[in-house]
Amino acid sequence: MTQQDREEAVTDEVVASFAGTKDERLREIVQSLTRHLHAFARDVRLTQEEWEAGIGFLTRVGHMTDDKRQEFILLSDVLGLSMLTVGINAPAEPGVTESTVFGPFFVEGAPEVALGGDIARGAKGTPFHVTGSVRSTDGSPLAGARIEVWEADEDGFYDVQYDSDRSAGRGWLRSGADGEYAFWSVRPAPYPIPTDGPVGDLLAATGRSPMRPAHLHFKVDAPGHRTLITHVFAAGDPYLDSDAVFGVKESLVVEFTEHPAGAAPDGRVLDTAWAGLNFDIVLEARP
Amino acid sequence: MTQQDREEAVTDEVVASFAGTKDERLREIVQSLTRHLHAFARDVRLTQEEWEAGIGFLTRVGHMTDDKRQEFILLSDVLGLSMLTVGINAPAEPGVTESTVFGPFFVEGAPEVALGGDIARGAKGTPFHVTGSVRSTDGSPLAGARIEVWEADEDGFYDVQYDSDRSAGRGWLRSGADGEYAFWSVRPAPYPIPTDGPVGDLLAATGRSPMRPAHLHFKVDAPGHRTLITHVFAAGDPYLDSDAVFGVKESLVVEFTEHPAGAAPDGRVLDTAWAGLNFDIVLEARP
Ligand SMILES: [Fe+2]
Ligand SMILES: [Fe+2]
Repeated sequence: MTQQDREEAVTDEVVASFAGTKDERLREIVQSLTRHLHAFARDVRLTQEEWEAGIGFLTRVGHMTDDKRQEFILLSDVLGLSMLTVGINAPAEPGVTESTVFGPFFVEGAPEVALGGDIARGAKGTPFHVTGSVRSTDGSPLAGARIEVWEADEDGFYDVQYDSDRSAGRGWLRSGADGEYAFWSVRPAPYPIPTDGPVGDLLAATGRSPMRPAHLHFKVDAPGHRTLITHVFAAGDPYLDSDAVFGVKESLVVEFTEHPAGAAPDGRVLDTAWAGLNFDIVLEARP
Repeated sequence: MTQQDREEAVTDEVVASFAGTKDERLREIVQSLTRHLHAFARDVRLTQEEWEAGIGFLTRVGHMTDDKRQEFILLSDVLGLSMLTVGINAPAEPGVTESTVFGPFFVEGAPEVALGGDIARGAKGTPFHVTGSVRSTDGSPLAGARIEVWEADEDGFYDVQYDSDRSAGRGWLRSGADGEYAFWSVRPAPYPIPTDGPVGDLLAATGRSPMRPAHLHFKVDAPGHRTLITHVFAAGDPYLDSDAVFGVKESLVVEFTEHPAGAAPDGRVLDTAWAGLNFDIVLEARP
């Protein structure tokens, strides 16, 4: 028996040990995981010391994880597994708005705002007017679609990253009768993903940036349509080509417009410069 | 672009993000890990819910792990990754004693015993006389080789699994001038790996047994030779074909002999039946 045969025999033995798994889907997953994990170890000729380093790394990821910090999700994000899973489950349909990673900063129970209202509620930054429409694949407007948005402030922090219970820079509203929507907030800034844990150490050791380009998160639901989870990114952002979590898609990069102080199209009068964004959304009709 | 192309583009992007890793070996490892992890997700068409279940499972493994319990090593063991790593790093050389998993029950600082002494020191079980020799690849005896052994008692527990600081069923000795060694202990019993954590849940969900066949751990060092980490298994053990951690190799399965009460060959007189084992060890000479 060759060395290769001996190594493959170990893999075959482990795969066979799962043959009695009653849940067919679980069996498929653990057997495939075994084959790919073993192929990795064989391909790199994993040493005993490297195996120990891997065990130590995962242990630190586990110990960093608690109710407020999910270091395993962060690890999945920087390894691109989160974005790949998005891609596997939301194949691009022509004309349908593309999806991207959900991220760790969504919060249940964000407040509803009226159409045209302001979700900033204390978040710091340049006033930001977001407008657009929600339509179905066939172009028909979707009235009453539920649009939830959340974003970092001008310092790159979400409300939940501050030592307070304040909810700011997040909220939801419904599209109008013609599918149109509009709200005010603040212009979001680029931000680094948390770097004080093992995932930060991994990025440092591999010379990777922890930065994410500025973006606004959207979650859009309408009856008879697939839920859309996505971001809008600011055109020209310096981190578009090096998003730490690989979430950027070309179709999601939109020009943020700049406006001097004065009256905005909706009649609001601003005493500072403000920014604007138009983002038209197309949801996939579900059969 | 096809769906497959889009998915592979995510993988390529992540692999490229690691291109600036200064440590070449680290780069090789993270890039290979990315490719294999992504191939797994694509092959099984991982759903968002399954991804979440995976994050939840790893989180529980992390939270189960502490100074006394290493659930990640247990996970690596039941996925056969530990045994595969052993195989990658200790290719079988003709005539050399084969290695197997180290396991989680080794303890630094175990006591030395004299040649022919008893390592049981309170461990419960049938008296067990272990004899053998330590030789080099060319057959020459290795005098003064350091032989460390550790084992479970007749109830299947290692000393460290009891609520006490007692050291029992472990120790080390040196081979004699002719390479021969001998010691007394107790006959080890089969045992289940710890099942009260997520790894136990995985074994239950996949219909796998947590049992390991009875064995005695050996770690053998001699100058100019590769350290040997292995077990000796008892022939006829009911769990030889279903070791939860895949550690069994045919060459390591040895007959445990049975003897009535009376005098043993070394002159010790026993008032109960006792067991015996002869295990000759060949270490690989290092160039
Ligand atoms: Fe974000
Ligand atoms: Fe053991």
